[in-house]
Amino acid sequence: MTDVQAQLAEIRRGAEEILVESELLKKLSQGHPLRVKAGFDPTAPDLHLGHTVLLNKLRQFQELGHEAVFLIGDFTGMIGDPTGKNVTRKPLSREDVLENARTYEEQIYKVLDPAKTLVLFNSSWMNELNAADMVHLASRLTVARMLERDDFSKRYQSGQPISLHEFLYPLIQGYDSVAMRADVELGGTDQKFNLLMGRQLQEAHELEPQVIITMPILEGLDGVQKMSKSLGNYIGIADPANDMFGKLMSVSDQLMWRYLELLSFRSMEEINGWKRQVEEGLNPRDVKIRLAQEIVARFHGLGASKAALEDFIARFQKNTIPDDIPELRLKAIDEGYPIANLLKDAGLTESTSEAYRMLKQGAVRVDGERVEDRKTTIPAGESHVIQVGKRRFARIHVG
Amino acid sequence: MTDVQAQLAEIRRGAEEILVESELLKKLSQGHPLRVKAGFDPTAPDLHLGHTVLLNKLRQFQELGHEAVFLIGDFTGMIGDPTGKNVTRKPLSREDVLENARTYEEQIYKVLDPAKTLVLFNSSWMNELNAADMVHLASRLTVARMLERDDFSKRYQSGQPISLHEFLYPLIQGYDSVAMRADVELGGTDQKFNLLMGRQLQEAHELEPQVIITMPILEGLDGVQKMSKSLGNYIGIADPANDMFGKLMSVSDQLMWRYLELLSFRSMEEINGWKRQVEEGLNPRDVKIRLAQEIVARFHGLGASKAALEDFIARFQKNTIPDDIPELRLKAIDEGYPIANLLKDAGLTESTSEAYRMLKQGAVRVDGERVEDRKTTIPAGESHVIQVGKRRFARIHVG
Repeated sequence: MTDVQAQLAEIRRGAEEILVESELLKKLSQGHPLRVKAGFDPTAPDLHLGHTVLLNKLRQFQELGHEAVFLIGDFTGMIGDPTGKNVTRKPLSREDVLENARTYEEQIYKVLDPAKTLVLFNSSWMNELNAADMVHLASRLTVARMLERDDFSKRYQSGQPISLHEFLYPLIQGYDSVAMRADVELGGTDQKFNLLMGRQLQEAHELEPQVIITMPILEGLDGVQKMSKSLGNYIGIADPANDMFGKLMSVSDQLMWRYLELLSFRSMEEINGWKRQVEEGLNPRDVKIRLAQEIVARFHGLGASKAALEDFIARFQKNTIPDDIPELRLKAIDEGYPIANLLKDAGLTESTSEAYRMLKQGAVRVDGERVEDRKTTIPAGESHVIQVGKRRFARIHVG
Repeated sequence: MTDVQAQLAEIRRGAEEILVESELLKKLSQGHPLRVKAGFDPTAPDLHLGHTVLLNKLRQFQELGHEAVFLIGDFTGMIGDPTGKNVTRKPLSREDVLENARTYEEQIYKVLDPAKTLVLFNSSWMNELNAADMVHLASRLTVARMLERDDFSKRYQSGQPISLHEFLYPLIQGYDSVAMRADVELGGTDQKFNLLMGRQLQEAHELEPQVIITMPILEGLDGVQKMSKSLGNYIGIADPANDMFGKLMSVSDQLMWRYLELLSFRSMEEINGWKRQVEEGLNPRDVKIRLAQEIVARFHGLGASKAALEDFIARFQKNTIPDDIPELRLKAIDEGYPIANLLKDAGLTESTSEAYRMLKQGAVRVDGERVEDRKTTIPAGESHVIQVGKRRFARIHVG
């Protein structure tokens, strides 16, 4: 195993918080592989790059010689939300859960090493607990502590109902750490309360508390809001290679460094070298190409990655986009931005009628691809390089 | 079965609240026996008359042809309170519970008809529930609703911890009504929240909600505080016949009517007749004797009741206590009131030295019984008739 300080440096990469770092150091020093847990909801097996931030951290642990546990929280998923308040949370059948788990596995093994990954289902221990065990578990915590959780507190203060079973969910997530004897648990920053629950319950069960590591929530293509399917600013793991490549090329130069830290498997040393190169004059686009190639290769293979680059160059870079084109943020009208309005509002045409003319003439390109249909609309959350004629360019984020 | 309106009149006797009376009327009109539930904690099998208020109401239902369920809440008793905050709530073993249940049965069949009583243990269905069922159950209620409960609300406001499992207890009591399909649940006024829980969960399970009947908390011998072992103002069901008789004779004329309503099996018609007789000149003491005789006969048999009366007359009434003797309330010094101070403070002697003299002479009687030991102390919560010489009397409540 790698030297403890080197391990710690790797683990710190991109992490928001390590709690408690001295405990992690102690655990690492014991020299045996740590059991590292990351929990996933079995209801949403369609992963995007935002989800992979955790997977990447899990992979780092694997590379450092530790045991990664991909925990599927199927117990609560199979219960669903019987309050009926949240219609999207229907109970999943055992078949649904297994099917979703298969979909997960197809996706996660693009990041994780299957040989070093343990996939567990929390139903395997939660189904063993009876009502008395649940009462016991609940006795470990106070109502006041639960109401400290940010979202609970807000809902309670504003009079929005919190169902009692919602208090049990964090408890169950915490108990998972007891049952599987996690040494470390990874989660998004929004999961901190639940991750701490694991520490508390492990201590109540006289186990050494897990170290929790929170990872930032990845920003979407707009660089502002979190990457999310519903916001439309995401890159799906299953997106076709060319789309993925194009989307990655569309991110701002600033967001690129963020993505490199959180999504790339290159060492920070190498990435920092690139940063220096850019400071010395390298076109950031060339770094972006490296990022796009790496990510596309990860999910579609090296061949697809090369083809995507060639395609990108063919339909886009050959148009010789200037290095520094204006960047604009436009607020979507309803669900998107009609292309003619966008061209006018971005100052790429004088008027919408000029816009219609340019569209008709085939002079308008979106990410290098000709657009002629005047009914084209750019959906909210998307970012594109828009070109009119040979010289007018703008990078547009529709928010 | 008795006519519905007559039944309702009987059920209303002494009840604090019937919720919802129109539903009760409807249930009664269906003409089949109702299942009437009263829950008891398996930890305290030593019953006093305060506990029998509920049992008496249960008995009334039996007499009206309904089915009484004496429910022993052993499930939570066997869990105990694992927080360790309340050291008195140690988990009970199955043997403890069965032993307590036997003690209960010995006592309750002095009130209830064994042939018409069903003794159930809630562990019999609660042990069948698993963790998922508990989560389901918890989903039926909101945190805000729980925090409406008076004691929870006070504790939350004042920053005193409420363990999460305490929220599950009312839920379990409510679920008992679902599992045993209760038509009616009886409880003290302090149980109203928990009784309503049964209604709510039955409705959630698409059952007709139970009617809840709250009974007042019986006042102790002092006529002020609730009857309670720890306050010392109680009459235990297992108290010897003479003690029980004497204690009942010591209650005030006002409290006597309250006890008759809540503790006597005589009809209200008959009791109201006595009230008229007292208004017309009957000595209330004669009514008190009827009450004492009935209660002693219930728990010790007719023979013991007669003997207790004779004993009472012999040692007490022959001293011809005047009809209206002064009544005093004295605040206990520490745990009780030393007899000499009490005699002086009640104005029965001029000084404590006179008190000591009278004690030595054998001129002091407590409830008709001579007291000579100057170290005698009247414990807090007790009420007695104190006599000095032939003519000085006072009814003293030590509070």
